[in-house]
Amino acid sequence: MIYADNAATTKMSRAAMDAMSACMADCWGNPSSLYAHGQRAKEVLEDARERIAACLGCSAREVTFTSGGSEADNQAILTAARLGEKQGKKHIVSTAFEHHAVLHVLEKLEKEGFEVTLLDVHRDGIVTAQQVEDAIRADTCLVTVMYANNEIGTIQPISEIGQVCRRKGVLFHTDAVQAAGHIPVSFREQYIDMLSLSAHKFHGPKGIGALVARKGVRLEPLIHGGAQERGKRAGTENLPAIVGMAAALEEACRNLEQNAERMSALRDRLIDGLDQIPYGELNGSRKDRLPGNVNFCFEGIEGESLLLLLDDKGICASSGSACTSGSLDPSHVLLAIGRPHEVAHGSLRLSISEETTPQEVETIISSVADVVDYLRNMSPFWRDLMTGKRQHVFDK
Amino acid sequence: MIYADNAATTKMSRAAMDAMSACMADCWGNPSSLYAHGQRAKEVLEDARERIAACLGCSAREVTFTSGGSEADNQAILTAARLGEKQGKKHIVSTAFEHHAVLHVLEKLEKEGFEVTLLDVHRDGIVTAQQVEDAIRADTCLVTVMYANNEIGTIQPISEIGQVCRRKGVLFHTDAVQAAGHIPVSFREQYIDMLSLSAHKFHGPKGIGALVARKGVRLEPLIHGGAQERGKRAGTENLPAIVGMAAALEEACRNLEQNAERMSALRDRLIDGLDQIPYGELNGSRKDRLPGNVNFCFEGIEGESLLLLLDDKGICASSGSACTSGSLDPSHVLLAIGRPHEVAHGSLRLSISEETTPQEVETIISSVADVVDYLRNMSPFWRDLMTGKRQHVFDK
Repeated sequence: MIYADNAATTKMSRAAMDAMSACMADCWGNPSSLYAHGQRAKEVLEDARERIAACLGCSAREVTFTSGGSEADNQAILTAARLGEKQGKKHIVSTAFEHHAVLHVLEKLEKEGFEVTLLDVHRDGIVTAQQVEDAIRADTCLVTVMYANNEIGTIQPISEIGQVCRRKGVLFHTDAVQAAGHIPVSFREQYIDMLSLSAHKFHGPKGIGALVARKGVRLEPLIHGGAQERGKRAGTENLPAIVGMAAALEEACRNLEQNAERMSALRDRLIDGLDQIPYGELNGSRKDRLPGNVNFCFEGIEGESLLLLLDDKGICASSGSACTSGSLDPSHVLLAIGRPHEVAHGSLRLSISEETTPQEVETIISSVADVVDYLRNMSPFWRDLMTGKRQHVFDK
Repeated sequence: MIYADNAATTKMSRAAMDAMSACMADCWGNPSSLYAHGQRAKEVLEDARERIAACLGCSAREVTFTSGGSEADNQAILTAARLGEKQGKKHIVSTAFEHHAVLHVLEKLEKEGFEVTLLDVHRDGIVTAQQVEDAIRADTCLVTVMYANNEIGTIQPISEIGQVCRRKGVLFHTDAVQAAGHIPVSFREQYIDMLSLSAHKFHGPKGIGALVARKGVRLEPLIHGGAQERGKRAGTENLPAIVGMAAALEEACRNLEQNAERMSALRDRLIDGLDQIPYGELNGSRKDRLPGNVNFCFEGIEGESLLLLLDDKGICASSGSACTSGSLDPSHVLLAIGRPHEVAHGSLRLSISEETTPQEVETIISSVADVVDYLRNMSPFWRDLMTGKRQHVFDK
């Protein structure tokens, strides 16, 4: 199996699995308990919190554990909305290509009377700080812009956007689920007020993530109940997963530069190889891009058929977000960067990892070329394109 | 170490750990992905859902996975409240001794204009179906009564309450976090509409639970985003934890009768032994009680000192819920059953497991007796009691 869907989920690292297993076997006490067995769990919890904070450039007290990225996104936006309401500020700035864990919460807030400005995304998959600045109003309570897009991997100018927000006195949240552990993230230095992350995107366990919130930003609980996480998130702490996340994030950050360099080279080879297929195009900037992300549109191709035939060849890939698979709608991300409906249906996302080999990359290139060719030969739509009955979207 | 705090959390069973490890190593794909590796994860997910449903007497489609009991409680109450609002019904019936994951959500709803009736709890720790019936009004949208109390272990007449609610056409939710896997629970037969459970209370992993909702009860998402769990709970499915939960629940249910019989005998011996300590009393009914729960109040004792001295003797116990430890308030549960403040501070909860031995029970009895004696000898409060300056709460 060639696994090229690391943006959907990753295989747990050995370090993360070992840390988790050891915790389940030996340190399974409830961190809220008074006795030594519980207090030891509490120490392990706070140690993990500190290690995670060190990786992100924030303080340990700023880290609140959640069940994952979606919960963190929901809680961050809810926090800003409730705070905004109190101050009579009910306007939120975001982008058209956020993850649904952001977009769907914003839709819900719109029903409650909030006004949401979704910034257009440039053709290259980037939103500028100037766009954010222009959109901020006197009643803006939140700017939420993702760090790196989950489908096309484009990296946003987070520091610049953070600076604008800080200067304007508006809370800034970033969904860093695809970025953390893959590219440098520095909470404080980048003027971020709230940041979401999810462990299973960087070889940590599923079901665990964090919401980092700047000191002074009082998080609104999404889950009410016990006093865990200093009253910000009820429920017994998921300690095994938390130590698994700490181990994975530390490992990812320790090897970040080296992994990024190696993966970027493979990614570029993959892009060059797929670029040879006629009537296809890379989605999003080639430069400001996650080291592991490649995303192409091919004319005359249905994404689903492409994936199934690649699967037959042992290649795991996706057409976009796993969170929306099964939906027949074209990707909102590809529409946001201006792809027409007919090609937004035929996208292919390949997300490689540290473990991907050059040989695997070559296999992917030739397999995609074969499958695209095969599918086009069967497609009446493609015949129309080739006979001039229908217009091409891309240059050859 | 003698671990007698299984109501706070349990040690994972070998079966649960093995199932989880195997899943992390081999079946780590994203269940929403189209390729075989993802589809296999999807099959494992649905298989786990069916096995859990079989244990609970519901259908697989009625099971929605959450990050634990607190999230499930929050979502259940939110669901009923939003539905109630639409129908102009803004009254909720609950009890004074629910878990905070219920009580704090109800407090929040009160601020939103809901009216909440908290039923008094009898001295024996039981709420009757008649009380529920009397409290239901034309505008009642929800009855939420816990299956078994987390501090004193008393079991509520859930079937009777369920029948009343069904007859009156009111949604019935039960927090079954302490009950599932320990005493028989049958979702359909007991007329339950929504039920919360948490895996780490029955030797499953932390960070996973479920909200069971009767077909026709449309759950309101608490976490918005991707379309996982048929749109009711966003976020990549925590598959390793889910299969761990399924393994633990199956094992617990398979051995339920046998474990209950064995543990009840040990529990009764523990109660008899502790009953020999003067001026102490069991909290809650002796009969309608979880097989593993013992909860005593002792006059003239501070709960925290008692726990620390027991910890010195290698015994892990608690004074109430781990979720509220660190709080200086007396237990709301003990106040609800009519214990005066001065003894509600001095409670001891011992919650044994299938692995507890008769020898451990004897050690607990003699250790508690010693520690109570030691603490009383140092206490001016106790001296006042013994010299008649202060009145006893309990008979000798």
